[in-house]
Amino acid sequence: MQNKIKIAVDAMGGENSPKKVIDGILENYKENKDVVYNIFGDLEKIEIFLPKNYNKDVFNITNTKNKILDTDTPLSAAKKGKDTSMWLTIKSLKDNDSDVAISAGNTGALFVISKLNLSMIENIDKPALAALWPNKKNFNVVLDLGANIECNEKNLMDFSIMGSSLFKSLFPTYQAVVALLNVGSEELKGNDIIKKAYQNLQNKKNENFSFHGYVEGNQIMDGNVNVVVTDGFTGNIALKTAEGTANFIINEFKSSMTSNFFGKISSLINFRNLKKVKRKLDPRLYNGAILIGLNSPVVKSHGSTDYIGFSHSLNVCIKIVKNSLIQKIKDNINK
Amino acid sequence: MQNKIKIAVDAMGGENSPKKVIDGILENYKENKDVVYNIFGDLEKIEIFLPKNYNKDVFNITNTKNKILDTDTPLSAAKKGKDTSMWLTIKSLKDNDSDVAISAGNTGALFVISKLNLSMIENIDKPALAALWPNKKNFNVVLDLGANIECNEKNLMDFSIMGSSLFKSLFPTYQAVVALLNVGSEELKGNDIIKKAYQNLQNKKNENFSFHGYVEGNQIMDGNVNVVVTDGFTGNIALKTAEGTANFIINEFKSSMTSNFFGKISSLINFRNLKKVKRKLDPRLYNGAILIGLNSPVVKSHGSTDYIGFSHSLNVCIKIVKNSLIQKIKDNINK
Repeated sequence: MQNKIKIAVDAMGGENSPKKVIDGILENYKENKDVVYNIFGDLEKIEIFLPKNYNKDVFNITNTKNKILDTDTPLSAAKKGKDTSMWLTIKSLKDNDSDVAISAGNTGALFVISKLNLSMIENIDKPALAALWPNKKNFNVVLDLGANIECNEKNLMDFSIMGSSLFKSLFPTYQAVVALLNVGSEELKGNDIIKKAYQNLQNKKNENFSFHGYVEGNQIMDGNVNVVVTDGFTGNIALKTAEGTANFIINEFKSSMTSNFFGKISSLINFRNLKKVKRKLDPRLYNGAILIGLNSPVVKSHGSTDYIGFSHSLNVCIKIVKNSLIQKIKDNINK
Repeated sequence: MQNKIKIAVDAMGGENSPKKVIDGILENYKENKDVVYNIFGDLEKIEIFLPKNYNKDVFNITNTKNKILDTDTPLSAAKKGKDTSMWLTIKSLKDNDSDVAISAGNTGALFVISKLNLSMIENIDKPALAALWPNKKNFNVVLDLGANIECNEKNLMDFSIMGSSLFKSLFPTYQAVVALLNVGSEELKGNDIIKKAYQNLQNKKNENFSFHGYVEGNQIMDGNVNVVVTDGFTGNIALKTAEGTANFIINEFKSSMTSNFFGKISSLINFRNLKKVKRKLDPRLYNGAILIGLNSPVVKSHGSTDYIGFSHSLNVCIKIVKNSLIQKIKDNINK
């Protein structure tokens, strides 16, 4: 079993679990034979969705009836004790039984349980939540998306290093280009913290990424940069505003295209093309926020995604282990 | 000429001016015969676009050759002196020769020149930049969009009062529903300033608006609220992120729908429906940010809009004068 990638999976988090988690694992395993899934949750409920005589070396289940609910606060989640499926998932990282952990459950709880169990990477002050975001050419990594409401210039520098390391782990053939999200592209814009971060990034010589300067909200998807750095308050609002806008527009298109006879015919003819757009904009492709800054990577799958989305998040887990995300961060933080 | 609405218009700001400004005025005048346009700019260049023997009581031009450029800093703009078309436009408000002012020029310059010439409404600490944003049911007013990078809880309360007054001026038959933009909808989320603003808004009894609580970025367009309040940093990034996302998606649709033979045919059939979406999402409908908090309202048209967009901004000018925006704010700020 050596050299296999070991993923700790919380089977009980998110909507429609454990079904979607197990279906996602089976989907993911089709293309990834070098993976061991250390699965934590209710054995009885999990086995329903696995084939009879499943390979217990690949699908290694630890049984627990206790689980974190979406309604738990981070505090009540931590208090539920050490036998919840989420806690055991993270503990598997701490004990070096797994290389990466994933849950589709309660984000706040996952964050707190991860911080309680795992230590920080040396010289990183705060962990950040990063996610993928499509752009005209490929993908952006955007961080922080809500782990830290307030950030100083050191945090923004850490995020630049962690974000570019994550980008290089996911897209090894691309050059990472970092930008700070701001309200203007001129050097004088923004608050003191962002201006100091700009200066520090300009002065830092780092072969791991190049620094582009500031980008505004409307430039995130231009494809000129691919690592967008911001504090958790702004990042969370930017990401969710983009989601809301995308849903709004797609719904407008949908209802207009089927609102009358011509619309219906035309949509039918154009079915293949619309499917192509849908595939490109499919949020399941971008599913999986990554909590980085701790000694092991923790992936948060969207609670409402389906098994395809969950399988994509497992791909993210595999890539960041294969391409040594944590080691990349450690190599770059002290440069 | 009494009882007519007097709009001070900077004819020289923005792309393709004064043509688009004058064309916009002529378009706007078709539906608004009770308006006087006090136009400031290069008489010779302006008159090219007006009909011969135009009515000088309606199109009242003050000639000046000097103008603010988009490349001017706020400081260099202020230094250019008191005979620029923008300065004269704002001065016309100060002198009570106009009820409202509009420019498609340099935003930073307009902001500074307005603040130099006009006094604040009593008990409002900072002016804010507000704009319209479509939602599922109608429109939102969103503010601040970048006038104030840092805001305290008093500012957010002022923005709530000003934003709801603006909303009621633009949509008199609707009830204004205020929300604070935040990273979660629970009472405990966000930073200290936003939590204090939440408390103050909950405690304030105000028949002018109801308070909904927090909204997240993905809820801005749901239509459950219509006045979205935030600091200028977050608001600017949210608005521009929404713009960028909308452009990205619409371009994806466009290129997919015409990328092959079937797409082309289908788009042709569906032309009318697509036009309907385009009309609903047309940014020209939302053109015109409003600088509020000063003793007179100043409207900023987008620099790159065309004459239709400029005409829509003139409609905004007319509505906020007709429905006494400034008086509404004054009535509500001390309640």
